[in-house]
Amino acid sequence: MRVLITGGAGFLGTRLARTLLQRGQLCGAPLARLVLADLGRPADDLCADARVQVRTGDLLAQLDALMAEPYDVVFHLAAAVSGECEADFDLGLRANLDTTRALLEACRRQAARGRVARFVFSSSVAVFGADPALPLPEVVDDRTLPTPQSSYGIQKFICEQLVADYTRKGYVDGRAARLMTVSVRPGRPNGAASGFLSGIVREPLAGLLAVCPVPPETRVALASPATTIAGLLAVAEASREDFGGRTALNLPALTVTVQQMLDALHAVGGDEARSLVRFERDPHIERIVGGWPARFSSARAAHLRLIPDGDFREVVLQYVRDHPQAVTNRQALRLAG
Amino acid sequence: MRVLITGGAGFLGTRLARTLLQRGQLCGAPLARLVLADLGRPADDLCADARVQVRTGDLLAQLDALMAEPYDVVFHLAAAVSGECEADFDLGLRANLDTTRALLEACRRQAARGRVARFVFSSSVAVFGADPALPLPEVVDDRTLPTPQSSYGIQKFICEQLVADYTRKGYVDGRAARLMTVSVRPGRPNGAASGFLSGIVREPLAGLLAVCPVPPETRVALASPATTIAGLLAVAEASREDFGGRTALNLPALTVTVQQMLDALHAVGGDEARSLVRFERDPHIERIVGGWPARFSSARAAHLRLIPDGDFREVVLQYVRDHPQAVTNRQALRLAG
Repeated sequence: MRVLITGGAGFLGTRLARTLLQRGQLCGAPLARLVLADLGRPADDLCADARVQVRTGDLLAQLDALMAEPYDVVFHLAAAVSGECEADFDLGLRANLDTTRALLEACRRQAARGRVARFVFSSSVAVFGADPALPLPEVVDDRTLPTPQSSYGIQKFICEQLVADYTRKGYVDGRAARLMTVSVRPGRPNGAASGFLSGIVREPLAGLLAVCPVPPETRVALASPATTIAGLLAVAEASREDFGGRTALNLPALTVTVQQMLDALHAVGGDEARSLVRFERDPHIERIVGGWPARFSSARAAHLRLIPDGDFREVVLQYVRDHPQAVTNRQALRLAG
Repeated sequence: MRVLITGGAGFLGTRLARTLLQRGQLCGAPLARLVLADLGRPADDLCADARVQVRTGDLLAQLDALMAEPYDVVFHLAAAVSGECEADFDLGLRANLDTTRALLEACRRQAARGRVARFVFSSSVAVFGADPALPLPEVVDDRTLPTPQSSYGIQKFICEQLVADYTRKGYVDGRAARLMTVSVRPGRPNGAASGFLSGIVREPLAGLLAVCPVPPETRVALASPATTIAGLLAVAEASREDFGGRTALNLPALTVTVQQMLDALHAVGGDEARSLVRFERDPHIERIVGGWPARFSSARAAHLRLIPDGDFREVVLQYVRDHPQAVTNRQALRLAG
């Protein structure tokens, strides 16, 4: 079993790679080779694993070399993020649309040589935006029409269509899964509009101030890193029949208010953590976040036995357990321990 | 007012061009120049009009020359048809996706020079296919999720997304309208799966045998050529507010059974015409046509005062009036006269 992860040095790619190496198998076959392609170098523990091969550089530029040997499963996670795509229209088209198309074309050539790759495409909840003339329903389900309101969302939605058609033609065995906003992300603030949904937990647990730009009653749809990775793996391992058609699938989401997130932070990190969050409304971010769907009914995901995180307190504890070195709050470390 | 019609020598392009030249204006401004771009040469009457400029050749190859002067309105009708796209995957991607994107890019360069073109994109009811796992609702409306089941439908749906995003960015003032199956098309059978929906009227009225490959109770959604052109013009002339958002709009459809079509043929052309239609079921075509939506609720089109054809008898008479030279049936010519 040869597996490729594009964006293999990113936050989700790294976590997916570690999970795969630990499991040692995918779709019932032993993991012989895991290729991690990304602009930068993956984490040291990944590079040290004998099964891992690292390919750094621009994906589109190195595609021929990267695809010289066939893959059984491709996880295509690499993408320019929403802020970049909004600031640089051409970059978004190249990094998201052109690169995905070229990768699908490479898989098509592989299929012509006799091996059809399973192709897991990480789409995004960002396909759902509020077209002023066609507002989103209160609850988004598997049949809700996406009307993306960002170039990133448009590019993801276009790639979903390409994956569906390459699959219909038998060029890949493609599955597009829409990832929810992932919280709590480790690391530094990344400037995304959704960044505060991790920052208001991560920073206070590290003893740092955090600003919340939206009112406490704001409702959002989240998934923890562990739930997100479980979703990608379930989508990769599902039979075509269980996946259900060729249309993109919404991964499950936990619906919480920002107030509930802060209550969970309080429960885990005490007054010390909670007091480090300050509200400072930002109308720009408020408008963007307000356009995102907050409630999902994900029947197809449930059919794959994928369920949302149970409550946000557990999500906070997951973060503390996974990243103790980034946490200074003693109560949180004790509770997680 | 400078107007471009791509596919300007095709059936709909020709009819749109004639209508525009006859009106002499679009969006309230006099029509000074009408550029018709197509692989082949437009009809003689169009070429003879002093306002018309003809550009023959591959659209993608001649794009720079074609877009050297700015346009106020672009009607982008040119496309490889569904059968071609299914037979030649690369041709479809090039003729439909790459060409539309290049045309939008050219419009973006024009916008950078100060003139934002109104961009009318002819999408298609073919975006609606029956994903086995997500069957279409009984009535398709403006919020129905398209799950295209052909490369042509996928490409049209992708281009709708590009038009929406180029519009959001201010690069064009784009409007995508989904055309219904047009009946009665003049000319020769074109081999499309939907071809019989014109053929079972056109051939008998010319004294020729026609084969109907689906059972008489089959329900289909149609629009006459006149109603289709009226739809394109209304979409072009609508204010952005009246168009309603940036999502593609379904043009109105008349829902009829094949039996009702044949009854209309009988009413217009008598026993002589009706007796020339033979049923000969074709499971392949039956399956394709059965996957198309047959009933529409088109609120956005209605808001633009676009209504479906009233009944199919009137559609047959429209055909006879528009193409008397192609009709030999005396009763039909008398009724239409």
